[in-house]
Amino acid sequence: MPAATPAPVVLALAAALGSSVVTDAAALRDAQADKSGHRSAVPPLAVVAARTVAEVQQTLRIASAHGTPVVTRGAGTGLAGGAIGSAGEIVLSTLAMDRLLEVNAADELAVVEPGIINAALNEQLAPHGLWFTPDPASRAISTVGGNIATNAGGLLCAKYGVTRDSVLGLTVVLADGRLLELGHRSVKGVTGLDLTALMVGSEGTLGVIVEATVRLRRLVPGITPTIGAYFADVRAAAAASAAVTAAGIRPAVMELVDAASLDAIGALLGLPLRERGAAYLLVQTDGAAAEAEAAQLLALLAAAGGTAELTTDAAEAARLLEVRRAMHPAMERLGTTLIEDVAVPRSALPAMFDAIAAIERKYGMVIPTIAHAGDGNLHPNFVFEGPDVPEHVWQAADEMFQAAIALGGTLTGEHGIGLLKRRWLRGELGDEQFELQQQIKRVFDPAGILNPGKVF
Amino acid sequence: MPAATPAPVVLALAAALGSSVVTDAAALRDAQADKSGHRSAVPPLAVVAARTVAEVQQTLRIASAHGTPVVTRGAGTGLAGGAIGSAGEIVLSTLAMDRLLEVNAADELAVVEPGIINAALNEQLAPHGLWFTPDPASRAISTVGGNIATNAGGLLCAKYGVTRDSVLGLTVVLADGRLLELGHRSVKGVTGLDLTALMVGSEGTLGVIVEATVRLRRLVPGITPTIGAYFADVRAAAAASAAVTAAGIRPAVMELVDAASLDAIGALLGLPLRERGAAYLLVQTDGAAAEAEAAQLLALLAAAGGTAELTTDAAEAARLLEVRRAMHPAMERLGTTLIEDVAVPRSALPAMFDAIAAIERKYGMVIPTIAHAGDGNLHPNFVFEGPDVPEHVWQAADEMFQAAIALGGTLTGEHGIGLLKRRWLRGELGDEQFELQQQIKRVFDPAGILNPGKVF
Repeated sequence: MPAATPAPVVLALAAALGSSVVTDAAALRDAQADKSGHRSAVPPLAVVAARTVAEVQQTLRIASAHGTPVVTRGAGTGLAGGAIGSAGEIVLSTLAMDRLLEVNAADELAVVEPGIINAALNEQLAPHGLWFTPDPASRAISTVGGNIATNAGGLLCAKYGVTRDSVLGLTVVLADGRLLELGHRSVKGVTGLDLTALMVGSEGTLGVIVEATVRLRRLVPGITPTIGAYFADVRAAAAASAAVTAAGIRPAVMELVDAASLDAIGALLGLPLRERGAAYLLVQTDGAAAEAEAAQLLALLAAAGGTAELTTDAAEAARLLEVRRAMHPAMERLGTTLIEDVAVPRSALPAMFDAIAAIERKYGMVIPTIAHAGDGNLHPNFVFEGPDVPEHVWQAADEMFQAAIALGGTLTGEHGIGLLKRRWLRGELGDEQFELQQQIKRVFDPAGILNPGKVF
Repeated sequence: MPAATPAPVVLALAAALGSSVVTDAAALRDAQADKSGHRSAVPPLAVVAARTVAEVQQTLRIASAHGTPVVTRGAGTGLAGGAIGSAGEIVLSTLAMDRLLEVNAADELAVVEPGIINAALNEQLAPHGLWFTPDPASRAISTVGGNIATNAGGLLCAKYGVTRDSVLGLTVVLADGRLLELGHRSVKGVTGLDLTALMVGSEGTLGVIVEATVRLRRLVPGITPTIGAYFADVRAAAAASAAVTAAGIRPAVMELVDAASLDAIGALLGLPLRERGAAYLLVQTDGAAAEAEAAQLLALLAAAGGTAELTTDAAEAARLLEVRRAMHPAMERLGTTLIEDVAVPRSALPAMFDAIAAIERKYGMVIPTIAHAGDGNLHPNFVFEGPDVPEHVWQAADEMFQAAIALGGTLTGEHGIGLLKRRWLRGELGDEQFELQQQIKRVFDPAGILNPGKVF
């Protein structure tokens, strides 16, 4: 316990939940930040590390009675500040609720608690020949509950859908502690409004997910050919990736790495990557047509000006993948990174790279950018010194958001609004939809205790 | 104009919209019914056959000013009474807004008006090598707007998803005439609450869909093998279909026809179908693995006790498909039909058929049933004399709904709640979710003029 007298809400929680209520300084400090680099100014009052649905319900009943805000949190791997605790708030962690409750191969579904790590779930599913397709880059460290709360994307969305498409049903605790069962175990179901879909991506503002029934796929059999291709410039690589989609091929993975990213990755790996080109495209195909598609892709990428190599050898493939995988550690060596997340229609990828280049020139900055090119989802990285995003970076980001929206896209493809993009939400939604969304939020949470100041 | 003095709201609509406002008796009579067989007791005040977004907005502004209920309607092919007009109501038809506004092959999307017929859209997409996957059995006569308003299913959902998975963005007119743009043109996007998904399946209770941006797929190349298999009883056929899913195969189509259905279909077609078995399973595979999967299926169905034949010949395939396609006309010869629509997890198909058999015995009735077996979606047909569903049929249906829900399913897989299933909605949702859904409805439509008495 801290030296100061605990707040009444913390005393009430401790009385009800005992050791699940944590107030040591390290735990509170951890709950002030996520993977965005952002940190709140003041620690939250306490962390409740819930172990059961009943504990979540009790936490919300007590918080409601005290009018105390509750920030739901999984593994804290968010990139938008959506699960950051701050002054006067309770952080409700569902990380310890991490059981796989059921695997049903016949129905291709699983029932999970929210704290289960995405990769851990997939490890437990593999012996059944099954697979939970949402595949955020954070899969080794992020929870399924967090994936659902942010409608997480990843590398496979063009072919295998976004998280929303994999959620059949949810058990949710409302702000006042009531339990709600949404959805069903059948593939189809149209009984009333689709509150399951509404809950996916709601970033802790509508309720606390305490159980999820998720759709699974069979593991895709056969080999997964991998192609790495270098291009003379990013526009050529972007045009090539758009040509892949236009040719009617849906690769499992199609990732684009630009010149500034290759510089940093080459420096990290000690490899002369930039001698090979100024942009890199990594493509994988899977399924029954994988080899035929890969051969077609190889020809298509060469025709688009790429220097491409194809392999089905695991060690060779790992080498081609390593370039993309080294992006995040390469950025961390440069300074503090704000990883942005715009999405555009796939044909607009070249135009979006042009817009980023124009912003780089205008602001005199370098914006290393990678893209889930198969989805039209770009992650431009703003690098700066110190913990706080400088205002000129936000100005540059603002221009980037406007460019993405003007191209028919959005200011966040998969990371969410959280804290960091709140000021742009109204601009994209428009006043009327913004008001409507706030009213829906109030239906679920009339007192406004669920993740206040996030999203809205 | 009818002989009676038109209501003030009709005069106001006619003054504003001229010939788009229709009040002749035939048009009003048509708007009193849909394909459910249900008919309202009293005709609506008028039908507005809107041709533009502006006309939809004007209609809603005028209806709001007069406090007049508005029933949005497409082709009137619904099976739950969701678009039926009644006393004191305006029926707002979007059937004339039927343009394909854009096809974008590079982004695999189309922009459509709501009145476009599903099959007509697909005819226009085919030359581009593209395809809108939602495939309700009504596709030749139902509109895309209606497909979206009901989150329509069909034969391909296990493999190709439900309508919701194909909707990227919607333009919606609210009850007061305001225009709302939801979603985006990119594959990904998590900006705020997912109101696009909420609107899908909302059955005209939240707003009027006036434009949709939909995801497309490339037409699946290659041949589509077709298998027809007869079984000794429906339980064996249901178990075989569950075994297909359990074996990890996702057929494009997997339809099950029971004995009573085969009796009626055989009589219609003049074929001795029942001599071949007491249940029929129709399966199609597609894509690069189609032939390998079909061969595997043939062995699997034989091992499950089926007498199966496989063909890749178009005329032979048509003969195998005809058995399933003749279901609806075969039912129409028997009397008035209430087509029910429960869905269960796929492994529960045999148990659901057992439950239907028990209801048949208890009520002394025959319930011909077909199933989208790949999705776990059953259509039991209640046949009776005269226009109105007899109370004992509703009692039997009630027991069927309870059985489906107890098996983890739902009382409507793809048809919606509309008028006909209102009294069961609260039972499936539970009191708390039911109240929450009504509150969300009020956020969109505070005066309650949008399709009142439907769904809620």
